[in-house]
Amino acid sequence: MRKFGIIGVGHVGVTVAYTLVTKGIADELVLIDSNEKKAVAEQLDLEDCQARLDTTTKIKVQDYSELSDADVLFVTAGNVASLQHHDGNRWAEFEYTREIVKNIAPKIADSGFNGVLVDTMNPCDAIAHYLQREAGFTTAQCMATGTFLDTARMQRVVAEQFDTNYKNVTGYVMGEHGASQFVAWSTVKVNGHPLMEYAKANGKDFDYDALEEEIRMGGWAVFSGKGYTSFGIATCAVKLAQSVISDAQLECPVSSYNEKYDTYIGQPAVVGKNGIEYVNQIELPPDEEAKLKNSADTIKEKFATM
Amino acid sequence: MRKFGIIGVGHVGVTVAYTLVTKGIADELVLIDSNEKKAVAEQLDLEDCQARLDTTTKIKVQDYSELSDADVLFVTAGNVASLQHHDGNRWAEFEYTREIVKNIAPKIADSGFNGVLVDTMNPCDAIAHYLQREAGFTTAQCMATGTFLDTARMQRVVAEQFDTNYKNVTGYVMGEHGASQFVAWSTVKVNGHPLMEYAKANGKDFDYDALEEEIRMGGWAVFSGKGYTSFGIATCAVKLAQSVISDAQLECPVSSYNEKYDTYIGQPAVVGKNGIEYVNQIELPPDEEAKLKNSADTIKEKFATM
Amino acid sequence: MRKFGIIGVGHVGVTVAYTLVTKGIADELVLIDSNEKKAVAEQLDLEDCQARLDTTTKIKVQDYSELSDADVLFVTAGNVASLQHHDGNRWAEFEYTREIVKNIAPKIADSGFNGVLVDTMNPCDAIAHYLQREAGFTTAQCMATGTFLDTARMQRVVAEQFDTNYKNVTGYVMGEHGASQFVAWSTVKVNGHPLMEYAKANGKDFDYDALEEEIRMGGWAVFSGKGYTSFGIATCAVKLAQSVISDAQLECPVSSYNEKYDTYIGQPAVVGKNGIEYVNQIELPPDEEAKLKNSADTIKEKFATM
Amino acid sequence: MRKFGIIGVGHVGVTVAYTLVTKGIADELVLIDSNEKKAVAEQLDLEDCQARLDTTTKIKVQDYSELSDADVLFVTAGNVASLQHHDGNRWAEFEYTREIVKNIAPKIADSGFNGVLVDTMNPCDAIAHYLQREAGFTTAQCMATGTFLDTARMQRVVAEQFDTNYKNVTGYVMGEHGASQFVAWSTVKVNGHPLMEYAKANGKDFDYDALEEEIRMGGWAVFSGKGYTSFGIATCAVKLAQSVISDAQLECPVSSYNEKYDTYIGQPAVVGKNGIEYVNQIELPPDEEAKLKNSADTIKEKFATM
Repeated sequence: MRKFGIIGVGHVGVTVAYTLVTKGIADELVLIDSNEKKAVAEQLDLEDCQARLDTTTKIKVQDYSELSDADVLFVTAGNVASLQHHDGNRWAEFEYTREIVKNIAPKIADSGFNGVLVDTMNPCDAIAHYLQREAGFTTAQCMATGTFLDTARMQRVVAEQFDTNYKNVTGYVMGEHGASQFVAWSTVKVNGHPLMEYAKANGKDFDYDALEEEIRMGGWAVFSGKGYTSFGIATCAVKLAQSVISDAQLECPVSSYNEKYDTYIGQPAVVGKNGIEYVNQIELPPDEEAKLKNSADTIKEKFATM
Repeated sequence: MRKFGIIGVGHVGVTVAYTLVTKGIADELVLIDSNEKKAVAEQLDLEDCQARLDTTTKIKVQDYSELSDADVLFVTAGNVASLQHHDGNRWAEFEYTREIVKNIAPKIADSGFNGVLVDTMNPCDAIAHYLQREAGFTTAQCMATGTFLDTARMQRVVAEQFDTNYKNVTGYVMGEHGASQFVAWSTVKVNGHPLMEYAKANGKDFDYDALEEEIRMGGWAVFSGKGYTSFGIATCAVKLAQSVISDAQLECPVSSYNEKYDTYIGQPAVVGKNGIEYVNQIELPPDEEAKLKNSADTIKEKFATM
Repeated sequence: MRKFGIIGVGHVGVTVAYTLVTKGIADELVLIDSNEKKAVAEQLDLEDCQARLDTTTKIKVQDYSELSDADVLFVTAGNVASLQHHDGNRWAEFEYTREIVKNIAPKIADSGFNGVLVDTMNPCDAIAHYLQREAGFTTAQCMATGTFLDTARMQRVVAEQFDTNYKNVTGYVMGEHGASQFVAWSTVKVNGHPLMEYAKANGKDFDYDALEEEIRMGGWAVFSGKGYTSFGIATCAVKLAQSVISDAQLECPVSSYNEKYDTYIGQPAVVGKNGIEYVNQIELPPDEEAKLKNSADTIKEKFATM
Repeated sequence: MRKFGIIGVGHVGVTVAYTLVTKGIADELVLIDSNEKKAVAEQLDLEDCQARLDTTTKIKVQDYSELSDADVLFVTAGNVASLQHHDGNRWAEFEYTREIVKNIAPKIADSGFNGVLVDTMNPCDAIAHYLQREAGFTTAQCMATGTFLDTARMQRVVAEQFDTNYKNVTGYVMGEHGASQFVAWSTVKVNGHPLMEYAKANGKDFDYDALEEEIRMGGWAVFSGKGYTSFGIATCAVKLAQSVISDAQLECPVSSYNEKYDTYIGQPAVVGKNGIEYVNQIELPPDEEAKLKNSADTIKEKFATM
């Protein structure tokens, strides 16, 4: 039986919940929120789906003890509204989400939960690290969506230049899920070809800095039009959870602990039943390695203040 | 190729869109909203999903002419905020949604769309009728979710009394998707048994009026906790659309034109490629027939003022 | 994590396996067959799917000890070829499948398996009873597909008379999954209407005996054209397993232990995490009750010789 | 509405059909076989599934005129038994399948079908070319699964060396879907790393010829254990069809027309609504280019005798 928990039923959390229910992925689902009325309303709305679906998911609310035998716990709390006045800087959520983690980490620890945590809170990397430490899990057990989402945006932006499928673009956005992130252009391929070669061969002359800016501001583009982001991030979080549940050993960029820089950061890793099975070490050219170091420093600096 | 349009990308519209994309139901999807920035943001957020999904959906925005070869058009515009001060009375949305329909109906007509309309706007029944008339479609082509959602709530409320699956409860909520709706208790079965007999046999003594009130206020319970309803209603709308697309001839309660009472109203009907293939005539006991007539009168009265 | 076992990778077993893998239902799957080469070949063929699927299923073979933590075990062994010369009489498989059960029952018992058994072997009802007894499980833990498949055929045959969706037909085929089965016409409804009334109202005058014969011989019609049956039966078996896995409490006709007649027999029951949660007692008219008794006697008589 | 046709309801054809029905991909499906009794039996068996599924697929049989508005036509005829005495040499099916194509090509042409053909017959590449020519379609409209399946096997064999997910392995098997195929090792990556570098970094010393032989004989391994292959090949064929239906522009190795060598051959191409949208030209090292030429010569030689 597959059992999932979700702490925080805001836009991201409920989209994760809706996906798990409507695609028949979850057999049991536990919703927890600081606003109990909202958690119960989301439970009801999800239950209103079930007479119309072919699968059945048991939904429980507000009970941390139900997490003891859950396989994956999504931590999706946060207050997106705090972003509104800060031009998309995810550090703006920092103080707010740190308080949330201070509050929920001991409850998670006490619940007996011993599965894998998938965190979507912002500032993504630092908060995942903080959560891992405060709740007392191994770094393997705690990951955050990080640049998995930014990579999806990179796949979109690059694919559209070639009218090809987003899945035909591979490679990584690395670093912080935030301003200091960077596209590791050396890793990007289109239809199996190194991007820059393929662009030349197709007579395309890109402004790579402009493309990178479009990717970095992808979340902001969504946010400024709808007031929050939900679908892309939820789809990434669910994908990671499915890899845990089926021990899929899926390789993908995800925020996880980097030993060299002693911080959580968006980097390629392999995800399985233990969470982060191993970091997929890749050789970056010096300019990209410098960007990774710079991004790691940014994250660590903030984390140090926690 | 399956092609869908959605007019109105509020909570319901985008949940329909997300479902069609993430379950691989739609090959092509057209999003239209009076707020272009929001439509574009939703397109981006849905596109950010696609590198993580196994299926591909092409998403277009703001172009009515794209509806000309669409199979199903969801009309999900509306301003849920107007509800907030009216204690759940869906007529509160009346003036607002009528203006929307006045605005979009000629555009739909001009687009060349000739598929099936699935309307979720409120007041559901009257607006569907108004939309059908204004946009110049046959009554078969235009349906509204109506009491399909209330019936899902009835299945939930009744099933929970017996700890059985929601899908083990059959029967209909009929009438207005609003205050004058009623549970046609004579049609309700649990595990194949007539409800009232089964309740007695299991030593249960229900207050059926209280159950009915819980069902009727199901939407309000969700609304008061989360500020809107989205999952249940979207799942119902998608189910209807799937029945159209595959010509499934699915029998279910849905808001459709009733000849006897000359109004749209929630009643059992069969849904296929032509929309409402036929109304499923059922014999109600006199007290339930009276409730149906009363509900029809309520809807007609409002409709007359349109 | 959802884990399933399959003993017997003939046409039914591998179709179940393929369904669990390609629909992403199983996280782990154990295949066991008396023909090891075939089990390994099926494993390979299923693994050849996985680079093309969005989900991942770990497939293991020939290891009974892997069943110890499985949730559901399909028992699908049998030699359909033995049917070929016996005009569709499922008792023809009796001696052959009894020997199989004698061989595998102690291995299942020794494996430590303690989940739910879903049996598709023939003669379905007697073999399920024999398997339950030999392997030492409770009657709740052991069910067989039984008339769940015959009921699907009844839904098809009846629905086609009205050009309606198969799912719009409800009711039960009961008794033996074999010659003595019967359609409990008193339970059959179309679009919510009692069949016989609805037929009259629609000016249809059926030969119900002929319809019943078409339903009863449905398996034979498939068998005589393709040499075996696989899709319908596998779909029924998977549906039951999904109800177990998600504790769905799904009500459906299934072969299970009937106290009154002290035998396994096709009857409505509710399926959840414990297997048969309870038999759904229904009141049959005397002629149908007599048919049920007759069918029970037929099954018991054979079972007594085991 | 998505409509598919299948000519040839042997093991591959019916597995394709079962997948399209049970995953809700097809709204309408046409089955055609030289053995009408078998086609009807498969229709019945697929229809027996539908009362247990959430989606509906209309199934028609033996009517070529129904293909006129189909989107994709699978051509899956063939007599796998002829393989049995030929040690896995797919040319053994040559004379037999050529006669089939001679018979069906004019019927396809006359049906008015104007969608995309997905061929799985053997010898795959030559037969696809022959079918394209005989039925009068453009080369874009006619593709064969070719080395898409062999590539899935390569992904399996390589991934297992590293205990990683099959989908973490990219690259191509190219050339004939048969003995002269080859793994384009220069294209193979594991977790994003060039295979040979990654193997060294992980202290692995492979016999690449042995790996290639295991991949090449993957079909034979399945065939020798189960008497045919069905799941892997059907999954590949369905994946191609889904790319056509949704105009996904999916890049993958597939048998398609190669201008340089004037033959059908397994090579990377991009698949969309028009079938083969374009061949994805890749630069091979001289030894691999020589293998491609050799394989092309093998296919052309046989094709010349048709």
